[in-house]
Order: sequence, then structure tokens, then C-alpha cells
Amino acid sequence: MDRFFVLRDAYGSVQAKIANNAKLQSLLKETPYESVLRVDGIVVGRGENRNKDMKTGEIEIEVEELTVLNRAAANMPMLPDAKASEKTRLKYRYIDLRSEKLQRALRLRSEFVHNIRKFLVEKSGFVDVETPTLFRRTPGGAAEFVVPAPPPNRGLAYSLPQSPQQFKQLLMVGGIDRYFQIARCYRDEGSKGDRQPEFTQVDVEMSFTTQEGVMQLIEHMILSAWPESLAHIKPKSPFPRIPYSEAMRLYGVDKPDMRVPWQIEDVQGNIFDFLKKEDDKSENWQARVLVCRGAAGNGLSNSTRNEWKRLIQMNENGQNFAICQPLKKNWFKSIDNQKIIDKFDLKKDDVLVVCWGESEGVYWTLGQLRNYVAEAAGLRSKNTVTAHWVVDFPLFSFEEGQLVSTHHPFTAPLQKDAHLLYEKDPKKLLQITGQHYDLVINGVEMGGGSIRIENSETQRHVLEVLGEPMEEMQHLLNALSHGAPPHGGFALGLDRFVALLSSEGDPLTPVRDVIAFPKTKNGKDLMSDAPTTLSEKQLERYGITLQPTSNPTPS
Amino acid sequence: MDRFFVLRDAYGSVQAKIANNAKLQSLLKETPYESVLRVDGIVVGRGENRNKDMKTGEIEIEVEELTVLNRAAANMPMLPDAKASEKTRLKYRYIDLRSEKLQRALRLRSEFVHNIRKFLVEKSGFVDVETPTLFRRTPGGAAEFVVPAPPPNRGLAYSLPQSPQQFKQLLMVGGIDRYFQIARCYRDEGSKGDRQPEFTQVDVEMSFTTQEGVMQLIEHMILSAWPESLAHIKPKSPFPRIPYSEAMRLYGVDKPDMRVPWQIEDVQGNIFDFLKKEDDKSENWQARVLVCRGAAGNGLSNSTRNEWKRLIQMNENGQNFAICQPLKKNWFKSIDNQKIIDKFDLKKDDVLVVCWGESEGVYWTLGQLRNYVAEAAGLRSKNTVTAHWVVDFPLFSFEEGQLVSTHHPFTAPLQKDAHLLYEKDPKKLLQITGQHYDLVINGVEMGGGSIRIENSETQRHVLEVLGEPMEEMQHLLNALSHGAPPHGGFALGLDRFVALLSSEGDPLTPVRDVIAFPKTKNGKDLMSDAPTTLSEKQLERYGITLQPTSNPTPS
Repeated sequence: MDRFFVLRDAYGSVQAKIANNAKLQSLLKETPYESVLRVDGIVVGRGENRNKDMKTGEIEIEVEELTVLNRAAANMPMLPDAKASEKTRLKYRYIDLRSEKLQRALRLRSEFVHNIRKFLVEKSGFVDVETPTLFRRTPGGAAEFVVPAPPPNRGLAYSLPQSPQQFKQLLMVGGIDRYFQIARCYRDEGSKGDRQPEFTQVDVEMSFTTQEGVMQLIEHMILSAWPESLAHIKPKSPFPRIPYSEAMRLYGVDKPDMRVPWQIEDVQGNIFDFLKKEDDKSENWQARVLVCRGAAGNGLSNSTRNEWKRLIQMNENGQNFAICQPLKKNWFKSIDNQKIIDKFDLKKDDVLVVCWGESEGVYWTLGQLRNYVAEAAGLRSKNTVTAHWVVDFPLFSFEEGQLVSTHHPFTAPLQKDAHLLYEKDPKKLLQITGQHYDLVINGVEMGGGSIRIENSETQRHVLEVLGEPMEEMQHLLNALSHGAPPHGGFALGLDRFVALLSSEGDPLTPVRDVIAFPKTKNGKDLMSDAPTTLSEKQLERYGITLQPTSNPTPS
Repeated sequence: MDRFFVLRDAYGSVQAKIANNAKLQSLLKETPYESVLRVDGIVVGRGENRNKDMKTGEIEIEVEELTVLNRAAANMPMLPDAKASEKTRLKYRYIDLRSEKLQRALRLRSEFVHNIRKFLVEKSGFVDVETPTLFRRTPGGAAEFVVPAPPPNRGLAYSLPQSPQQFKQLLMVGGIDRYFQIARCYRDEGSKGDRQPEFTQVDVEMSFTTQEGVMQLIEHMILSAWPESLAHIKPKSPFPRIPYSEAMRLYGVDKPDMRVPWQIEDVQGNIFDFLKKEDDKSENWQARVLVCRGAAGNGLSNSTRNEWKRLIQMNENGQNFAICQPLKKNWFKSIDNQKIIDKFDLKKDDVLVVCWGESEGVYWTLGQLRNYVAEAAGLRSKNTVTAHWVVDFPLFSFEEGQLVSTHHPFTAPLQKDAHLLYEKDPKKLLQITGQHYDLVINGVEMGGGSIRIENSETQRHVLEVLGEPMEEMQHLLNALSHGAPPHGGFALGLDRFVALLSSEGDPLTPVRDVIAFPKTKNGKDLMSDAPTTLSEKQLERYGITLQPTSNPTPS
């Protein structure tokens, strides 16, 4: 009787057949799955037995020799492409890496990165420069890992930088006028969202450029590097430019998801003015509507409605709202509800959400709802990539009563607003528009950049306004005063971008699906069990003592 | 009167002329050197005034408009390409980066790295995979920087790995059968030689290969990536293969410098047997000679002779030696010295050094002398790159009475020696040849690699023989038992290699000359003054206290 087995390597699989050879058949029988084999044989057609569901299903290998190069354990903890818990798959990452999904993701990543380099080096004259990761702490710096220094610097520490921001600016001052780096960055933010403690960004900086110059370059870079196998989801150039204020007005967020067809609508004609109570004197009072067309195709179940309510109520400001569906008409007692149906041309499977109260909360609420409802109702386009730029952000914002940089203190203001920097009134400062630009794809910020302040005195003033400790930034201020060209740049979140590509447009795919050896949310490497305790020798060398938390969690 | 100035950018410089324009001339006069200018004007020929020493000396720009984009400080701490102390140049690295030398080095580095990637990705099917730098400590691990973990893992620490060795092997197990990475690595070795705490290696690993397969790939990679501007110093393929034992026998070192034309010579015919004293019964007694042809062209001064002696006496074993020059013939009383002259065909500008005693010391002494004398006498070829492979290293060595891996514990033995691994007698273990190969260029080890042990039980046994703590390596042992293909790889020291290229063959060029922002020997960044003290907030977050050394040195 013939015996069959499947041979697999990094590029595919094929059926092998051992005909009447008792010795080889018995060797095969005692060889565990996932063992590494060498097969010598003849490729033959399978004729009528061909397998149409298999890429190589037309052929098979008639085995003449079979050698077990390395035997796998009889009881494998998991098999590639088979079901296993997330924990098991992370612990045995080297087995999971054999799965079709991870093989494809890592190879796609390699291809994309290589294409980026070719574009930057060969077509655009950029210089690939490595910058240090053992650096000094930057102001604020709470999110930076530290590396204790050995003697003779014991007692001091390096920091692992969150980005090469300072170095790229210093390179501009140093006459490397077109710099890029696929840069490893570090961020100690605990288990905040889908983030890894180390991540990678495509880091770009150029001298003698403009905001438009950088955006065009990055757009061309992305499109030029787009993998051929994903041509069907390649966005068109130019990516639309949306001012920050417009993004907030129409989508309630600064990173709108353009796969959702709806916009927040202004309510002209004062149709909802009746909602304004006597005591709503605030000039910030507003009523806005979001018409979720087609969102109630199968009616709006109570559970869905409750979920919407829950989401709306998440906003701390406690917005007022009404969920209006044409089939149930008794939304408001004080006006003729048909007027609303007519005004917004509501069909039976549409839902209108009206929200009123403090302006900021109204937009936030409808913006969140817009994404949620489209997703829940399956109305967000699948396998689509919509890319656009959000521009004209305010240079400063208020955060917990504190004036802060909306992005970072190195962003230059628009030329026309530069004089406002010296105003004492914080309100005037908030009116300054920065030369910052975000690349937003499918509702996720994929990267951002800005034209930087190149004048040392202006930079010093901005740091002062922000109350940043000057001595920490002295080297940058010095550099700007020693012949710094105008410059600007961009950083693209590579992990996130590759996750988007490999999922054909899902920006929420976990980044660990495109990282060879990721860590858990809690910063653990389950494979090697890092981090670990230190040896006495290490503690001694760095002069450190480590005080544990009372109850470290396992993973 | 016309006024002239030189405009410079990243690509060159050109003369600019301000004709009779008092306003522009006075603006120029008050603008400090190294300021950033915008010039509008007309390119004209300089006619008779052309400057043949300047690349653009045929032309100049007649300035019509001059705008100061960013004024430099009037008192610059240094100027590019001008003399300044090493300390000043590191502190103002962004100014030094404008120098012709550093501009060229960084651009050459970028070109070389890009060429490597093109070869590996486009011609050889390699996948560029990023591996983590926050990892667990490895056995020994004394040379690894540590990164204290934040809550919930406070009290534990990551380590910054010295190379992606474990990860590249795990990738082979994971079916990424051809991996490469231009990898940032970390090494805490204090101020040992010309080394940086962070450095970069071209890291390569492949499955289903052989020693010869890897060496050929790397050789092709290097030659394919060789910068066009350095074609005149490009070595020929194939690089010669030299067994370790032959390297020791002919050159006294395992990284011979082939730019030196001399070899250590065996003394046949027992001509020097008279040197063996009655009590030299040791079977390791040897006499060897090095004929330094042409080394005494101008006679051998006393000071040179003394320097040779000093060098020879540096060997702890205290070798016996004689420096023999034909012009002075009374070297040995017990034999006719003319015999020596005849035997080695000594001409008047040759020097023969004979060294006798314990074998190891004799080779070491002559090996050191070989390099020193050739360099001092100017007889080492300049602007030459000689590349070769050293192979057949012993798998194990003795170090301070301890059996250690000659390279690392993952190196596989030659197939024919594998059975010796299970011998109890250490002498037998020392006879095992490992599948390790070093790439040696101009006397410096530029990189090394090996075929790895792919069998989990063999790997466990080797770790046991070496007394390594098994629990630290459990993940690798597991991986090898879950279907690991035969594999091997290589790592090229990128900084050192680019230093060799940029100096046209000088392997001793400091690596900081090809690194954008290097640290001093003491691990300081003089520009930003890293490492620094930590904030209370940081100490608290990581639960650490740092104990300084009694007297930290400044730089």
C-alpha cells in the first residue's frame, strides 16, 4: 500500500508518496510531524488524483530516498496554522512563525521596507544614517527606558529614545541634507493599547523644504513602495488634505475614517433650536446630527440601541442625544417629527442621531458613534485603503490647565502666525497654526511630521513658553545657532503600516502579527521569559538595586 | 570693488561674487561664516581667473539677491575641515559632520549598506527581519547592558543583546530560511580598544547550507556591494581559505595580515639546534625564523633594534631571540654565521630574526614582530585590501584552566569529529575542529560565522560540557527539538568594515570616523552629555537606586 505525506518548506508544500518500500514506510511512520526531512525522488503528475485545492495539487513526489535530518519531538506543543491559545503561540513563536499568515506578514514587511529604501536612496538621494539609541534623557522623558551606565560613569544612565528626533535635526545642521533611517524606537507606556515597548519607524528629514514638499515625498514613497500583490487596495495620489478644523467639524476626530460614508451635519434652519433650554446660554451650545444611512437595515434592536447609548454616555460631559428611526416616530413631543424625516430625507433603514450640548462633547460623541455604528452595521468599506493628510493643527493646546505642544516643541508655526508666539495671552497662543501634518489611513494616524523651528532664539522662546528645562536642550539650541538650514521631516509607524497592508486595510490588526518576536501587553517575552532577574555581578557592575512591585503579574 | 565668498552645500562648493552693490556687500560683511544663505544669481565663467584647484573653479555665481536664512553665531567653536581637538569635534559633532571626510564616510556607508541589501533581497532571496533588543540576559552575559522593567515587572530587567544570535537561529526554526538584518548590537566592555557601546553588524543566517555555502554567499555579498568609487582596491574572488593551524604556523596569529610579504619559516636541517640547551627537553621547544626582507634599507638603528627587542620581550614567556643583519656578522659564536646568510640568502638590507623556546611563545613573538616591522619599515602595501577566510578552528580552547568555546557554544563540530564530543578526556575535546570561519582583511577580523548545532541533544550536551546554566537556554533547546533545519550564518562588523573602505584599506581607522554620533572611549556622548543623572520619577518607576563610583571621570 502507498503511504502519503506532505512536505513543506518556506515557499509551499507538496505531496510525497512512498510506494512499496517497507523500510521507508516504517521510517516515515515513526517520524513525528514537523521533523526536518530530506527527500530524493521523482516528480510525477497525479493525473486523476490531482488536488485542486492545493497549489501543487497536480503533482507529487515519488520518494526514492528519505532522510530524517532532524527529528521533531513526538508531542509538539502546537502545530503551525492549527488552533492554539495566544499564550501558547507566543511561547512557541518559532512554531507559529511557520504559519502561512506570519510567513506572509514577515516577507511582506521585508518587501515593503526594501521598496522604501530603494525609493529613498535610488530615486530621491537620501542617505541612510544610523543614530544612537543610548542617549541622554529628554525633557519630560517619563516614557523612556533607562540603561544604567557602567564604571567610570556608574550612578548615571542612558535613555533609550522614543525617536531620533534630535539626531535627525542635528544631521540637518551637519549637512546631511536628506536623511532617513528605519529606526528602532523605545517607549515605556506599560500596556497602553496595542503598543510594543520597542517599535520601528521610517524616519525621514530634509533640508530646504516645505510642508508640501515633505508630504509629496512621503506620498510618493508610500505609493512607490506599495507591494505589487496589494495593487488592488493602493490609494490614489494626491491624498486629500483636510484641515484639522474641518476634520473636527465633519468627523468629530482629528483622524477621520474615510471608509465611513457619513459626515456630521450642521443643523441649518434652527430645526433643533427647541432643544436649547432656557439655561443653555453657553455660546458653545450646539446641536448636530449624524445620519447613519442604512444602519438599521434589519431594524435597530434594543441591544444595539443600548450599546449606542452606552457609547454616547462614555463622554464625561454627559451629552444629550436622541436616536431617531423613521419607523418609530415619537422622538420629540415639541415638534412635528415628520419635519425631521423630510429635512434629512430619512428612509426606513436610516438612523438619525441628534446630539446637543457643549460643542466639544457633541462632536466627540458623534465622531465616536460614526465609527462604531458603521463598523457594527457592516457599512465600513472592506479591503479599502483611504489615505489623507490632516493639516493646520494648532501649535499649542491646553491639557489639564497647562499649555502644551500639540505635537512637540520643535514644530514651527505658520509664517503668518509667527509673531503671535510672543503674545502673553494664552488664547492668542492657541490661535497659532503649526506646520504639522498627520498621515491618516482608515481612521488611524500612521505617521506625522512637521517643519521644524530652525532659529535658535525662536526655539529657546518656545521651550520657555512651555516651561521646558532649558539645560536639557542646550546642545540642540547650540546646534541651531551654528548654521542650521530650514528643515522638516516625517516619521511613519512601520509596524502599524505593515499590519494595515498585511490585513488588506484593517488598521486595527494587532502589530504583533507583523513583528517576528513581539512582547505581550505587559511587556513580557513569553518565549524566553524576559525580563528576568539580574545576577549579583550585574547589580554590582551598574551599582543598582532593584525594588520589585509587591505582586508582579505573570504575563 | 567686488566681494567674493564661498557657498557650500552637501555636494560641493562654488565661488560667489557680489559686484558693486553696497547693500549686499554690507549684508555679507556682517554675516558670520557658516550662516545659511539663499543666493539668487547667474552662473558665469571665470575666464582667466579660473581656479584649477577647485572642482567648480571654472565658474562663479554673480549674486543678484542674497538672503540670510539662518545666521550662525559670530564666534563658532570650530569650523568644518579646520583643526580642532578631538574633544571639541565630538562636542560639536554637527559642525564636524560638515567636513569633507565625514560627509564622504557617511554617504559611503549608506551606499555600501544599500548595496548589501540589494544583493541579499533582490539577488539572493533573503528576508529582512527585525529582532528585539529588549531581551533576556544570556549565560555569562557580563558584557550586556541592562534595562530595568517598569511595573508590573518592576524588579526584573531586560538585557540589550550583543547580537541577534539566538533570534536568528529561532528564525531558522520558524521557517524564515534566509534571514538578514543590519542589526544594532550592544556591548558593555568599558573602554576596551576601539569599540563603541552600540555597534552594527550585517547579520545573516540560512537553512540547509554548508560552511562553503555561507562563505561563498558572504564573499559575493561583499564584492557585489563594493562601492564603485573604490574599485581600485576591490579584492578578487575567491578569497583564499587558510586553516587555523596554517595561519598560526606561517603568521603566528589567527588573523594574518597578508599585506606583509613575509612568512615565519621552519628551520630545516637543524641549523639552529645548537641553541637548544641541555635542559631544553620540552617537546614543545622550537626555533623559527622570520626574514624581514628589505627591512634594514637604511641600516638598522639602535633605537629600532631596541624597539624590536621591547616588542619581543612583551611576551610573558620571555623568548630567546637574535636579530641578525648581514652587515654585522657576529651573531653566534658556536657556528659559522655565513652558513645562516647562505641558507636564507640574506642581502645587506634584510634582517633575520630567530626566536627559540616554547613553541607558542615563539610563534606569537614572530607574528607580532612581522606586523610591527613591516609597518615601521613601510613595507606593508598601502591602499590594498587582502581578504581571506580562516577556517578549521578548534571547537574548544583552554582559558585560565577552563574549557571554553573558541567562539560560541552554538558552533557545530565537523561531522567527522562529532563523536569526540562525548569523550571525557579534555585533550580529546581540544582535537575537535569546529565549523567556524572568520573573514580576515588586512590583519583584522571583520566578521565570523559558523554552521550551528541543530540537534537539541547535542546542543544540550555541549552546554553541559561547558558548564553553562541550562535553564537560561531552555527556549533554544526547545526550539531545536521542534523541527529545526540544519543552518549556519555569519555576522560582519559593519562599522569596522566601512572604516576600512573609507580609509581605502587601513583597518585601524577609528570606527568613530564612520559613525554619525559616536561615544568616547569612556562611553560618553560629549555633545549631549549622556549618560546623565536620572529623575526621581524615573528612579521610582523602575524601583532602582543608583550607586555612583567614587570618582567618575569626565570623558
